[in-house]
Amino acid sequence: MPVLKSRSTVALLMVAMAGWRSVAAQTTPTERTAAGAVLKTIDSLQGALAPTGLGNRLVAARDAERDKLLARTGAIWDSEMQGLSDWIGRNPEVGWKEFRAVDTLVKVLRRNGFTVDTGSAGLPTAFVARWESPAGSGGPVLGLIADYAALRGTSGAFHGDQHNAQSPVAIAAAVAVKEEMTSRKLPGAIVIYGTPAEEIGPPAKVIMRTAGIFKGTSILVRSHSTAQTARSRAGFGICCLDINEVKYTFTGRPSHQLSSWNGRNALEAAVHFYMSVDGLRSTFRPEASIQGVIPEGGVAPNVVPDRAVADYYIRYPDGIYLEHISTMMDNAAKAAALATGTEVKIDHYGEYRDGISLGTLEETFFAYAKSLGATRVEPEQQRPAGYEETGGVSLDVPGVGVTVASSTFSNHTQGMLDDAFTTVGHTAFRADAQIMSAILYHYLTDAAFRDAVGREHAALRGLYDQYQTNLRKAYASEMEGAVP
Amino acid sequence: MPVLKSRSTVALLMVAMAGWRSVAAQTTPTERTAAGAVLKTIDSLQGALAPTGLGNRLVAARDAERDKLLARTGAIWDSEMQGLSDWIGRNPEVGWKEFRAVDTLVKVLRRNGFTVDTGSAGLPTAFVARWESPAGSGGPVLGLIADYAALRGTSGAFHGDQHNAQSPVAIAAAVAVKEEMTSRKLPGAIVIYGTPAEEIGPPAKVIMRTAGIFKGTSILVRSHSTAQTARSRAGFGICCLDINEVKYTFTGRPSHQLSSWNGRNALEAAVHFYMSVDGLRSTFRPEASIQGVIPEGGVAPNVVPDRAVADYYIRYPDGIYLEHISTMMDNAAKAAALATGTEVKIDHYGEYRDGISLGTLEETFFAYAKSLGATRVEPEQQRPAGYEETGGVSLDVPGVGVTVASSTFSNHTQGMLDDAFTTVGHTAFRADAQIMSAILYHYLTDAAFRDAVGREHAALRGLYDQYQTNLRKAYASEMEGAVP
Amino acid sequence: MPVLKSRSTVALLMVAMAGWRSVAAQTTPTERTAAGAVLKTIDSLQGALAPTGLGNRLVAARDAERDKLLARTGAIWDSEMQGLSDWIGRNPEVGWKEFRAVDTLVKVLRRNGFTVDTGSAGLPTAFVARWESPAGSGGPVLGLIADYAALRGTSGAFHGDQHNAQSPVAIAAAVAVKEEMTSRKLPGAIVIYGTPAEEIGPPAKVIMRTAGIFKGTSILVRSHSTAQTARSRAGFGICCLDINEVKYTFTGRPSHQLSSWNGRNALEAAVHFYMSVDGLRSTFRPEASIQGVIPEGGVAPNVVPDRAVADYYIRYPDGIYLEHISTMMDNAAKAAALATGTEVKIDHYGEYRDGISLGTLEETFFAYAKSLGATRVEPEQQRPAGYEETGGVSLDVPGVGVTVASSTFSNHTQGMLDDAFTTVGHTAFRADAQIMSAILYHYLTDAAFRDAVGREHAALRGLYDQYQTNLRKAYASEMEGAVP
Amino acid sequence: MPVLKSRSTVALLMVAMAGWRSVAAQTTPTERTAAGAVLKTIDSLQGALAPTGLGNRLVAARDAERDKLLARTGAIWDSEMQGLSDWIGRNPEVGWKEFRAVDTLVKVLRRNGFTVDTGSAGLPTAFVARWESPAGSGGPVLGLIADYAALRGTSGAFHGDQHNAQSPVAIAAAVAVKEEMTSRKLPGAIVIYGTPAEEIGPPAKVIMRTAGIFKGTSILVRSHSTAQTARSRAGFGICCLDINEVKYTFTGRPSHQLSSWNGRNALEAAVHFYMSVDGLRSTFRPEASIQGVIPEGGVAPNVVPDRAVADYYIRYPDGIYLEHISTMMDNAAKAAALATGTEVKIDHYGEYRDGISLGTLEETFFAYAKSLGATRVEPEQQRPAGYEETGGVSLDVPGVGVTVASSTFSNHTQGMLDDAFTTVGHTAFRADAQIMSAILYHYLTDAAFRDAVGREHAALRGLYDQYQTNLRKAYASEMEGAVP
Repeated sequence: MPVLKSRSTVALLMVAMAGWRSVAAQTTPTERTAAGAVLKTIDSLQGALAPTGLGNRLVAARDAERDKLLARTGAIWDSEMQGLSDWIGRNPEVGWKEFRAVDTLVKVLRRNGFTVDTGSAGLPTAFVARWESPAGSGGPVLGLIADYAALRGTSGAFHGDQHNAQSPVAIAAAVAVKEEMTSRKLPGAIVIYGTPAEEIGPPAKVIMRTAGIFKGTSILVRSHSTAQTARSRAGFGICCLDINEVKYTFTGRPSHQLSSWNGRNALEAAVHFYMSVDGLRSTFRPEASIQGVIPEGGVAPNVVPDRAVADYYIRYPDGIYLEHISTMMDNAAKAAALATGTEVKIDHYGEYRDGISLGTLEETFFAYAKSLGATRVEPEQQRPAGYEETGGVSLDVPGVGVTVASSTFSNHTQGMLDDAFTTVGHTAFRADAQIMSAILYHYLTDAAFRDAVGREHAALRGLYDQYQTNLRKAYASEMEGAVP
Repeated sequence: MPVLKSRSTVALLMVAMAGWRSVAAQTTPTERTAAGAVLKTIDSLQGALAPTGLGNRLVAARDAERDKLLARTGAIWDSEMQGLSDWIGRNPEVGWKEFRAVDTLVKVLRRNGFTVDTGSAGLPTAFVARWESPAGSGGPVLGLIADYAALRGTSGAFHGDQHNAQSPVAIAAAVAVKEEMTSRKLPGAIVIYGTPAEEIGPPAKVIMRTAGIFKGTSILVRSHSTAQTARSRAGFGICCLDINEVKYTFTGRPSHQLSSWNGRNALEAAVHFYMSVDGLRSTFRPEASIQGVIPEGGVAPNVVPDRAVADYYIRYPDGIYLEHISTMMDNAAKAAALATGTEVKIDHYGEYRDGISLGTLEETFFAYAKSLGATRVEPEQQRPAGYEETGGVSLDVPGVGVTVASSTFSNHTQGMLDDAFTTVGHTAFRADAQIMSAILYHYLTDAAFRDAVGREHAALRGLYDQYQTNLRKAYASEMEGAVP
Repeated sequence: MPVLKSRSTVALLMVAMAGWRSVAAQTTPTERTAAGAVLKTIDSLQGALAPTGLGNRLVAARDAERDKLLARTGAIWDSEMQGLSDWIGRNPEVGWKEFRAVDTLVKVLRRNGFTVDTGSAGLPTAFVARWESPAGSGGPVLGLIADYAALRGTSGAFHGDQHNAQSPVAIAAAVAVKEEMTSRKLPGAIVIYGTPAEEIGPPAKVIMRTAGIFKGTSILVRSHSTAQTARSRAGFGICCLDINEVKYTFTGRPSHQLSSWNGRNALEAAVHFYMSVDGLRSTFRPEASIQGVIPEGGVAPNVVPDRAVADYYIRYPDGIYLEHISTMMDNAAKAAALATGTEVKIDHYGEYRDGISLGTLEETFFAYAKSLGATRVEPEQQRPAGYEETGGVSLDVPGVGVTVASSTFSNHTQGMLDDAFTTVGHTAFRADAQIMSAILYHYLTDAAFRDAVGREHAALRGLYDQYQTNLRKAYASEMEGAVP
Repeated sequence: MPVLKSRSTVALLMVAMAGWRSVAAQTTPTERTAAGAVLKTIDSLQGALAPTGLGNRLVAARDAERDKLLARTGAIWDSEMQGLSDWIGRNPEVGWKEFRAVDTLVKVLRRNGFTVDTGSAGLPTAFVARWESPAGSGGPVLGLIADYAALRGTSGAFHGDQHNAQSPVAIAAAVAVKEEMTSRKLPGAIVIYGTPAEEIGPPAKVIMRTAGIFKGTSILVRSHSTAQTARSRAGFGICCLDINEVKYTFTGRPSHQLSSWNGRNALEAAVHFYMSVDGLRSTFRPEASIQGVIPEGGVAPNVVPDRAVADYYIRYPDGIYLEHISTMMDNAAKAAALATGTEVKIDHYGEYRDGISLGTLEETFFAYAKSLGATRVEPEQQRPAGYEETGGVSLDVPGVGVTVASSTFSNHTQGMLDDAFTTVGHTAFRADAQIMSAILYHYLTDAAFRDAVGREHAALRGLYDQYQTNLRKAYASEMEGAVP
């Protein structure tokens, strides 16, 4: 046959272009091949851990201490934190500018006995609030993540993603657990991580992770708004695609238009780079998603521009091939500078990668959510993804994102913001806090649970590395130089 | 969440980017949605027709006439056609240049009582060979497709796709059926379509179809080499992607380099068009595959080029969105002319579209193949596809491609060519001829079978049109103008 | 000979690429050809008018009234206007923002008996100050141009082009002439035009001209800083090149990066337009100077940009071929929109064209300048150019720019600003004011002079139109469509 | 003033954009500045040599030997060479394919006692024919250049530049001088250089020069068709612009369209390079002329092209800035390879540079031409240019191109070809041969003349080097890297 392939090779081609099954994180044939044995090992691991049963058993078990703790968490929410959530919701501040929210939260935390460091990792609106048990530091370090950045809307900042609730939820859980540890003389510590700018790059959590802020944490819990109560399948992935955020700054030499030959045109370089990226699209696998802007492209038309900036989001289902794309794009940027006699500075300012989901924690959260009356429950497991948006922190510390349906509207909408102030949101936030209390409680007091969580995370972390190695092998020939 | 989407929307996104299941022809979510009811109707139709049972029954039935016909077909192959197949195999000619093959085939057909017209549809190496039954023209017109073009290899023409065998196979079947019709005084006609240049564009079968060459044919059979004995599932599709082949010729105004401002640069236009296509890639769905060359880009650097040509293959899983891509690319070509003060001529010189597979014919072929000892049998049904590579003819005439495994090497290889001269190929070609005889025999003599084939084709043709209408609706908003 | 041309054709080629003589405004062979007879007619006209002799005679003539007027002008400068010049120099405001300068000037003018309208032609910092002679409106309307915009420097606004002095100079002259008209009961009027934003587009004077602001003015005088006391040759031209300032705004359709195919990318359009312009450079004559920026090229990389802006300065020695360039660039912009499925709005926001220099006024200014002790006198006549930077006003109203060397530094420098506050600048500004007084005085009182000025302007205006017609003919074949 | 410059800087700007005077070879202000003292030294040199007087004296002098020689040259032309010229004119062969012409010329030369080497410098249709005087090798080596390549016309090869005559003219002169040397026992040698492909690149004479073919030659004479009898001014230059001819070959990795990501697209690289060159145009001085084609831009649209070629002619008035352009373009080519993951091979296959014109030889030729009745005499000296089209040979060896008007049509026309067969051409060719004889005669026998020629060439060669050094200094800042 002609421009086509014969029928007997159709099957192969189909596979070559096929997509992913909805629950697996491996979306391309290369990734599925690379993941092959790894996925089977995850399945075995889950078979051995039987996390669904585990979660259900924990919830069903009679445990008066636990019940008291959940009641206390609820009471803290009702008495103080719900108001704080509403206040933040009505005083939205965009990322890197959450000064009033942070001031208020720091005050509340200090009043509740936490020692608070602000400006963590050099970020003005980050903080770390720590409480050490008087019973000693021999126990686990229980971490809670607290976001507070609002969205940038067309008419200003607004909390359409309900980040207003996350810190009050975390504080309700933390304070209740603190009281529990104090009264029962349980050793350990509680740390609340105030993480700014969740909505915009560069990703604060990656900066804080790189600065070592999360080191020593035993477990991390977090809550997030959602329109559906659902849990992830165990494994690794990210909600959508891994991302590199990269800024390319070209510097030339200015000159008046009438002697343009004395200049070196930085905009010309940026434009050529932009075209080069378009030219590379068919040299990249079709699952790549690459989008750029030129936020600085010169000001005055009568002067040869000596500065221009291109800013790109580069996405691919896995981080290895993403590296390959990034390398070729960096080469294209260097080429644009070389071609125009300019210079380029390449700033990889943000990075989102596959994170780890633990069956033990996901199923425990899910069982509690159902028992606490969560609405809009999705029975199907979702695609694995780290409990925070960058993926990276979840590779280091086992954890879970608690997501009880808190709105009938989808994320990033005015509807979701409105629900934050009504029973729809309030009830869900209260449940989030109770579930977080429960998970930390089990982790703190149930050695078998703690052990299962630890083993699962270590195993998945090992498999994750193995998967990356497999991917690197699978892409090796494609990532090679031009001519074999 | 930030640059990402929330977990509750993951499922939707996954679907949005998912590929196809291996046997369906619908590869994108849009296509699957558009096909929804259509696919169910196809399933019902197949349920009612039960073609697998039909095929098995036909093969298993005792039928001395049929057995005699198959024996005679085999004898014709053995005595004469195998030698002819080898001769063509050893005298390869590339598409549009198959003069010796056609001369030889015409002689053989005339000797066998066929009336042959050459140069059909204005194509020098096409022919139509016709035999009318002395019993009258009241019966069906049995068609057979005969290819003979060789591949263009790096060291010249070679029959790495075994097109050498197709015409001898068709003649063996046709002559045996002719004898059968003569001796049994069955009315009807036999037509062999000599179709050139199967490997290169523009597609000969589309030209012949447009010229009305296939009109009046009741059924078409054809054989093709393969490394696997497999049949298609009923429905519509194409092996890989639908294709538009388009040539864009830019015309400018020449001028000496030292007065370039008096010229209009056609190469500049072609280059801008090429860049524009790259720039559109992210405006097209990722399943699109677009690749171009600039076969004429100017000759002498001291003259402003007044002629330049870009040649593109544009592919997409369905023909409707492909039209959308084609329209935007035509606009980009017109834009390149406008931007450079040149003119553009756009020649849509080739087109491949979804064709129709019939369960009745596919399963009959498959049952015979197994009964005749075909090797490398694939139990799974394959993706639906027309029996010829352009798809179009199969929309008009019911038919089937007979593909008994004829090599242990894949298509377009030296290994497949070598197998054409040994028992591996010879045995398979003989079986192809016998299966084609059998299918034509049943169609000629079995009114119920003939009726089932006709009804299935009519139904699928109707569903095909409905599917195209659905697709057009589904893409409507995307295909609209720029600003809503 | 080969890629080259033979020696006998060298001469032609040389002409084809030759530049301009330093004093003529016609810089290309085409322009010189078009100007041929026109230039000769200008020469005849100048021969008849003998303006150098005229200027020298006027200066040399004994005229006590004139001497008194000049003394009074100097006194007004010394007593008040020098201080005002310094004050504006120390309170620089960039174009369109000269609010304090205008407030102050308006107060001074009103105090001196002028009726002032502000916000002229819809420009917030433009004004028109008018004084009607009590002797009646039968006499000429004497106009003075007053600029006040500062430069945009790297560390803020600064008066590196000494526009601080222009308004005080004009007021000194205007007030002295007003007193003269009053005391001698001369009919007529004096109008000072406050013209903002001299340094940036869109050109205020073109907007004011289009609004009819200058209608009815008999003569216009103006001063400008310079490092050399020089006058223009009679004729038409512009200091450097004619200019079109054009903004191209592309509008598309936004979409999230992950469904980019639902969007239409406006940045893609802007980038393609930018590349198209580069691609046209060799299709334009080499004297063209085209420079662009992309001040808006998208903001967020995760959304398909639905708005992008390119801003260009397009320059050519004459306005006719400039139109041709502009038309081809507009086509390229429309093409970029067509190619990308976006829309484009083209805004021709600024225009600078050849203006008219009058020998009668230039030589009179020059003779007075020398007699008043101007320094750095350049004996050679300079290229003809309108007395204001847009050229257009000078086509309607006869006038002259008075430029006594006011700095030892070149324009647009800190050195020139420093000189504005010392004797170097002060002395020159004083002389500028006196020369303006003198010219207005002669125009007002000397009918022969007035008549000569009027006839010269009318003749040159006619020749200017004829020259434009000739140019249009000369370029006709080049400006035609693509294919002959 | 605003976007413009002030009047006092106009003069400078004008100079910056001005062209050249018609007789000087320095066309840009930079070049004129660089040439400043050099041009004055040339003028002094010419003043001292007084070549016009010298030429006139030589012609006017009584010299029976010279008269006999010219008569003999004419006789050889009439009896044999005119017929040979016509024969070559009627058997045109394009560059590199002049096999029949060379065969014939070699036979004629051998018959006339020359030793002929063919295939010189590895060029199949080049030759060197040598004759050593029996009187010994102590004398000068007299060189004659013989071209024979025809033009490529739209309907095949044709001698529209009259290269058919050049070899017969040279042979007529050479044989006559040989007889003179023999009979007068003058020591020395005569060498005829058969130089192919004058019309197309790469330049044969540069290849032969590099191979050392011209070493040891004392003087070179040559003839060329023309429509005007004119001589060059002394100095250095080239008819139009210096040229670099460069081919950029990009190599990628092929892959089927449906797996384009396994390929590296060489056409993409060529297209990006092409766009980069357009993007550099405003970074080069406006006198640059750069024009390219893409003669190889891929063949089959279904395969990622792994080879693409761009071919450019790069021209600038001087060789130093031309180097700068070439370097930036080479960088752009390397950048295009880097950006696309391909490789590039850069082949600088042709080079034309300023050559040296000698007043002594030019004026002698001119005086003889007039005395021999040359028509269409141009009294003005023309722009200096080497006597052969590449410039390079004239830097090493003093020489002159003899150009008596041989047609009433311009070069590269059918009219000029027609004139080659009539009295118009025949008479001029005969005169060319006689003038060449005369020049070689004086050089051979007149020590003062030989000395003047040698001194002038040495002086100009030194000044040429000095000029190049000056240019390099003048351009130094522009040729620097991006950021100061």
